[in-house]
Amino acid sequence: MANDSSFSHFNVTFPVANVAHVEINRPKKLNAFNKEMWLEYGTIFKQLSSDSSTRAIILSGAGERAFTAGLDLMSSGELTNAHDTVDAARKATALRRFIKDFQDAIGSAESCEKPVICVLHGISYGLAIDIATCADIRICASDTKFAVKEVDIGIAADIGTLSRLPKIVGSLSWVKEIAFTARVFGADEAFRQGFVSSVQPTKAEAIEEGLRLATLIAEKSPLGVQGTKSLINYSIDHTIQDGLEYTRVWNACALQAPDPAIAIQATMQKKKANFAKL
Amino acid sequence: MANDSSFSHFNVTFPVANVAHVEINRPKKLNAFNKEMWLEYGTIFKQLSSDSSTRAIILSGAGERAFTAGLDLMSSGELTNAHDTVDAARKATALRRFIKDFQDAIGSAESCEKPVICVLHGISYGLAIDIATCADIRICASDTKFAVKEVDIGIAADIGTLSRLPKIVGSLSWVKEIAFTARVFGADEAFRQGFVSSVQPTKAEAIEEGLRLATLIAEKSPLGVQGTKSLINYSIDHTIQDGLEYTRVWNACALQAPDPAIAIQATMQKKKANFAKL
Amino acid sequence: MANDSSFSHFNVTFPVANVAHVEINRPKKLNAFNKEMWLEYGTIFKQLSSDSSTRAIILSGAGERAFTAGLDLMSSGELTNAHDTVDAARKATALRRFIKDFQDAIGSAESCEKPVICVLHGISYGLAIDIATCADIRICASDTKFAVKEVDIGIAADIGTLSRLPKIVGSLSWVKEIAFTARVFGADEAFRQGFVSSVQPTKAEAIEEGLRLATLIAEKSPLGVQGTKSLINYSIDHTIQDGLEYTRVWNACALQAPDPAIAIQATMQKKKANFAKL
Amino acid sequence: MANDSSFSHFNVTFPVANVAHVEINRPKKLNAFNKEMWLEYGTIFKQLSSDSSTRAIILSGAGERAFTAGLDLMSSGELTNAHDTVDAARKATALRRFIKDFQDAIGSAESCEKPVICVLHGISYGLAIDIATCADIRICASDTKFAVKEVDIGIAADIGTLSRLPKIVGSLSWVKEIAFTARVFGADEAFRQGFVSSVQPTKAEAIEEGLRLATLIAEKSPLGVQGTKSLINYSIDHTIQDGLEYTRVWNACALQAPDPAIAIQATMQKKKANFAKL
Amino acid sequence: MANDSSFSHFNVTFPVANVAHVEINRPKKLNAFNKEMWLEYGTIFKQLSSDSSTRAIILSGAGERAFTAGLDLMSSGELTNAHDTVDAARKATALRRFIKDFQDAIGSAESCEKPVICVLHGISYGLAIDIATCADIRICASDTKFAVKEVDIGIAADIGTLSRLPKIVGSLSWVKEIAFTARVFGADEAFRQGFVSSVQPTKAEAIEEGLRLATLIAEKSPLGVQGTKSLINYSIDHTIQDGLEYTRVWNACALQAPDPAIAIQATMQKKKANFAKL
Amino acid sequence: MANDSSFSHFNVTFPVANVAHVEINRPKKLNAFNKEMWLEYGTIFKQLSSDSSTRAIILSGAGERAFTAGLDLMSSGELTNAHDTVDAARKATALRRFIKDFQDAIGSAESCEKPVICVLHGISYGLAIDIATCADIRICASDTKFAVKEVDIGIAADIGTLSRLPKIVGSLSWVKEIAFTARVFGADEAFRQGFVSSVQPTKAEAIEEGLRLATLIAEKSPLGVQGTKSLINYSIDHTIQDGLEYTRVWNACALQAPDPAIAIQATMQKKKANFAKL
Repeated sequence: MANDSSFSHFNVTFPVANVAHVEINRPKKLNAFNKEMWLEYGTIFKQLSSDSSTRAIILSGAGERAFTAGLDLMSSGELTNAHDTVDAARKATALRRFIKDFQDAIGSAESCEKPVICVLHGISYGLAIDIATCADIRICASDTKFAVKEVDIGIAADIGTLSRLPKIVGSLSWVKEIAFTARVFGADEAFRQGFVSSVQPTKAEAIEEGLRLATLIAEKSPLGVQGTKSLINYSIDHTIQDGLEYTRVWNACALQAPDPAIAIQATMQKKKANFAKL
Repeated sequence: MANDSSFSHFNVTFPVANVAHVEINRPKKLNAFNKEMWLEYGTIFKQLSSDSSTRAIILSGAGERAFTAGLDLMSSGELTNAHDTVDAARKATALRRFIKDFQDAIGSAESCEKPVICVLHGISYGLAIDIATCADIRICASDTKFAVKEVDIGIAADIGTLSRLPKIVGSLSWVKEIAFTARVFGADEAFRQGFVSSVQPTKAEAIEEGLRLATLIAEKSPLGVQGTKSLINYSIDHTIQDGLEYTRVWNACALQAPDPAIAIQATMQKKKANFAKL
Repeated sequence: MANDSSFSHFNVTFPVANVAHVEINRPKKLNAFNKEMWLEYGTIFKQLSSDSSTRAIILSGAGERAFTAGLDLMSSGELTNAHDTVDAARKATALRRFIKDFQDAIGSAESCEKPVICVLHGISYGLAIDIATCADIRICASDTKFAVKEVDIGIAADIGTLSRLPKIVGSLSWVKEIAFTARVFGADEAFRQGFVSSVQPTKAEAIEEGLRLATLIAEKSPLGVQGTKSLINYSIDHTIQDGLEYTRVWNACALQAPDPAIAIQATMQKKKANFAKL
Repeated sequence: MANDSSFSHFNVTFPVANVAHVEINRPKKLNAFNKEMWLEYGTIFKQLSSDSSTRAIILSGAGERAFTAGLDLMSSGELTNAHDTVDAARKATALRRFIKDFQDAIGSAESCEKPVICVLHGISYGLAIDIATCADIRICASDTKFAVKEVDIGIAADIGTLSRLPKIVGSLSWVKEIAFTARVFGADEAFRQGFVSSVQPTKAEAIEEGLRLATLIAEKSPLGVQGTKSLINYSIDHTIQDGLEYTRVWNACALQAPDPAIAIQATMQKKKANFAKL
Repeated sequence: MANDSSFSHFNVTFPVANVAHVEINRPKKLNAFNKEMWLEYGTIFKQLSSDSSTRAIILSGAGERAFTAGLDLMSSGELTNAHDTVDAARKATALRRFIKDFQDAIGSAESCEKPVICVLHGISYGLAIDIATCADIRICASDTKFAVKEVDIGIAADIGTLSRLPKIVGSLSWVKEIAFTARVFGADEAFRQGFVSSVQPTKAEAIEEGLRLATLIAEKSPLGVQGTKSLINYSIDHTIQDGLEYTRVWNACALQAPDPAIAIQATMQKKKANFAKL
Repeated sequence: MANDSSFSHFNVTFPVANVAHVEINRPKKLNAFNKEMWLEYGTIFKQLSSDSSTRAIILSGAGERAFTAGLDLMSSGELTNAHDTVDAARKATALRRFIKDFQDAIGSAESCEKPVICVLHGISYGLAIDIATCADIRICASDTKFAVKEVDIGIAADIGTLSRLPKIVGSLSWVKEIAFTARVFGADEAFRQGFVSSVQPTKAEAIEEGLRLATLIAEKSPLGVQGTKSLINYSIDHTIQDGLEYTRVWNACALQAPDPAIAIQATMQKKKANFAKL
């Protein structure tokens, strides 16, 4: 992939070798998502997943005010009204299919083979949290305002926040508190609770830090890095013994690559290593 | 349910609309539990679970000295002695049934459909931790003294602490340290480790904060809040994909309620929303 | 077991009653592990697991510079080169068997019935993290430099770090950051993230603190302590309901021991309790 | 327990030492179940589970025409109509609670510690299959007509058939065929597919065979038999390794009973063994 | 969907109201699959899954000689040769992506919401078994020759046979025997082992029986039938308790449809019921 | 390995190229197992697992009367008596360790990488079933008398029968019937229930059939066969999606072997293929 301007609501650029930058680009609407957008979002991450020249991805939102304000309620309203004449069970079938497509699109960053660094700033409500929990690494600007906002519109979050949040931070008491109350929390609290792994003073600096991390990761062996993502994601949902078994089947092949030899030699020669695409 | 004075060892009141307050009321014995008490405790939470006028629950202990000092050893001694003439395997059968009933009673706060906020203070040993780990949100007064006390009486905790604690805080090293040593730890450590999500200067202020949270939660759509509890609890014990699947089956029905429309309209009109019972 | 000098690369001593001290003893090579060493390591923990006079174990590294610098790359190189003439699938079979033996050896501290306290200092890279994640409690000296180093040699860690780390600390964002970047992190960060449960100024003080903890644990009922380890380890990989069921089958027998009575009497008499071996 | 005539719709008798016979007794209505009946059913099996003089249970239906024709649609209609004024999500909450109570009642034969032998005859539709799948052993008379009847009333079976049937017979193609078509199948087909383990010419002979099996089982060590039920039920829902681990924790206590010595001595002396209650 | 002739290698027709017939149509090549075909196959079942006028699907192969002879080795050879210059680990990455796409396409019949009846005849080797194991119901002509053929080309089956076969028939000894030896087995053996649920004399009669079943199923409430498929598939991979919980969340909504009332009324009036689309 | 006469109670021979025959050799005691024997048994299968010249294994019992009569009660009695002076919990710890070693030894045929064909004849009681359930394929002589004998000595089977039997045959009703009653069943019933996959008239013919199967399997690619065993065993204990994921990681490497090309070429040339060791 090269810089790609074919997407309606996203900028996809390659600011550094092997690093993709996906920018949510609907700043006038606080980067709120309509259906067309999340379908496009899914397409982008599915493409990057097997794009051999991409080794790390940063994800951010255009404009100063918001990473994303969440779901565009204007555009989603149509769904719940569309089927007024049918019964509750048939409506439920339509809704279930709709939610699955939505979950699959947003989950594409998690199943993407390449590491995804999510850089949050400003308003980061509702769907912002669903999106962020699918990323591998989360960092944010100090002005970020987070909220698991769904209970404030009378629903339980259903695009992934409630399934993933208890597995990516340590304090279940805190998870439930923010999910039951929908209260806004800031960057410092997000850091203290382990939701983000660093806070930068401004959005610009957060993007810079995201790029620095992505560049550092992109210089490593892509086999080592992508294997690491696969194995950690597998381990979250399996027993330790299962994780160990899967790991040895995976690495029994991965260890046959030239990358370890290249990496060790580069270290000895104090040069940058040059790894084949993946 | 209305204020209910029919319980021997608990006060159940409704200090605020849709908020129940369950108070352990055996302060002379430091709120230590005998069998009659934990049976009553289970009954209360089972009733509140489907009580349509309850939307949030706070749980606390009467008196200044203790949330609860744990199991009343005087009353539990009878069990282990009762079956002296039978063999080890038959004693084990009796004990297994006994522990199951005990676990079921204490676990009733976890399976209760309504959010439970546990407010701890003073002595909070042994069973206090089992009870607290079943609650959704934990807050405490600054004088709280916590201990996973069971190894000090020569046993492994068996009413839930060891099954739940590794899933509700982040540091397994810390969990094992406090469980192996039975050492007392204070409110600040409990907060730093994510066991509680806030510390208040006094018991009174902790109760007040608990009530503030409960009131805030009770004003939200009960469908949104109770769905959130169900989905988080499901997700803790399932894979992410399982969590997502269960979520869409759940929400395919929940989204058909009028609550989202009521919530959005109330927000626009800057009024309090008024949701139907659940 | 008594003090045992029959091991080539480890000192196994009993500095306090019922406390074993396993010291990695290859300081000239920064305690780097070759195959002979990790086989020996596995043997030691398997022996201690059922040694009835051991009730707690501390693990540390000899010398001032390193807990361990990880795998001795000199000695491991032979493996990947050994099978040059066979195809990728047959090499993979050999590697899978090799990794399983390696995982089993390092995992022996986790499956060891007795609590293991890992005391880290200085360089603690790569295999050091695999080893530490298998221990129950981790403490360190302030000079410790940690790194999940494997991506820097072009591979994904495969001896347990990626399977265990997400389950023993709270922030998955942090886990992925350190695993993708291989960056070095210090004692304070390790403490803040819950990887270690205390930091001591020097290696000597860290060993002292490890011994203090081990001694404290060794004075408790070994049934209570070892049951606690078993039940927590079971619970990490099972649902809460499964954990509760396993717990009651376990304790239905354990509660028949004289240890509770001994413990309670000792407390009343303010004496040290004296428990039978296990 | 002694013969108990306090139940409205069931006869509970003890035709042989340590053998209980639970008979569904509403033959005029083809033993169809209303809510009062399944609540009573749950109560009976919960009592028998810990009744120390019961070692095996047979379950059958009174009258010649039916084991049970299933749910009494007259009595269940009220439920779905009761909440007409509330929204789909609130109705769903009420239904979910209702189904859970129903599932718990019918599932009581599965969680009952004592073996349950279900003897089917005549019409055995719908709920009959839910009930039978919870039993341990199924036998039937040659006139039995089985049907997973629920799709014929426009619903998916929800009291357990769909969750248990795929785990208790071998052919998933057959399970889906009978569940999708609701077609009636006979005793021979049920035997060939492994749903029942024997077919007897008449109802009377089937009851006799059930009693013969129950008597045989009741003469064995209740520790051996009830342990066997526990361990098989655990194994169905766990991995083999989990099953083995649970088994050794279970038997480590069970093996300490005098039952093995009593059993072996009785065999040598060619006498009946006499085991203590459980 | 109407009759659709836009597919290159499949005929998709609607011979009966609400019944789709998918016919593999490459008889000159014994219906062997190349990549273009299995992609098309996946597309068809994904479309039918949400096609509201389809309530049951039969799947068969054109021509007299084969359901399918399996993978077209000519077309698949290209894959393994394509990446000759890269290392084993990078080849593995390409292969892993390729197998996933293949598995997803073939698995589409399993995840299809509508019941799929697979009608086998003649040569049914290799991929034929992968395909058949994804269907809900399997029936066959008496001339069918089955084989899990993969070991005869030196590989382990990887498109689903080994993951699904142990869960859809009863005898693991038989599963392993046919998988290790690749021996051909006939219709009678397939029936006796529960792999198919009926055998018809000829292909024509098998198609007729498939249509009869599909028609019967299509006349039932689609909510009842599709719910039944969902709940059985869920239950195969979850514990009984999980199955029961998922079932009640599912049915709490499904029971609100008019279908039960329509079904009961039709039965009373001895008319065909007329259910709304799904 | 070559023919090996170093074992005390087993004959290990290689009657055909790449086929090992393990014969239980204590016919005077009806091949009953004492501790020394099952330790030796475990050692043999662990060695064969990675023996590159073994591609299939048959297991049988010497003498005409018994495959094995099970555990040698004379030798096992010592265990339960040995620890008379300690309490129930400490006895349980000793027993738990003992059972684990026993389970590990018997389970070695399941974890053995090579297919194991168990040939049963004559008395096959108790431990015989534990052993047989660990094998991949079971065949028997027509004189075989099977029994899950453990309840007759007052215990629940604990070496694997209860964990594996429900997963290797289809009828749970039958499994529970034979496990609760300890009744003897014959070869025909074992075949009908899918426990064995063929019955031969005599022991000699059963051995011959076992050798024929083993020889057939040993002529296939060992990568294909051993991969098939690994993948089926994995799938039994995991969800279908997990099975598919593991399969693709496994085969992504296995498909790179020359075996498929060798197999296809041999088929075309109608010669026997010659595969490299594994």
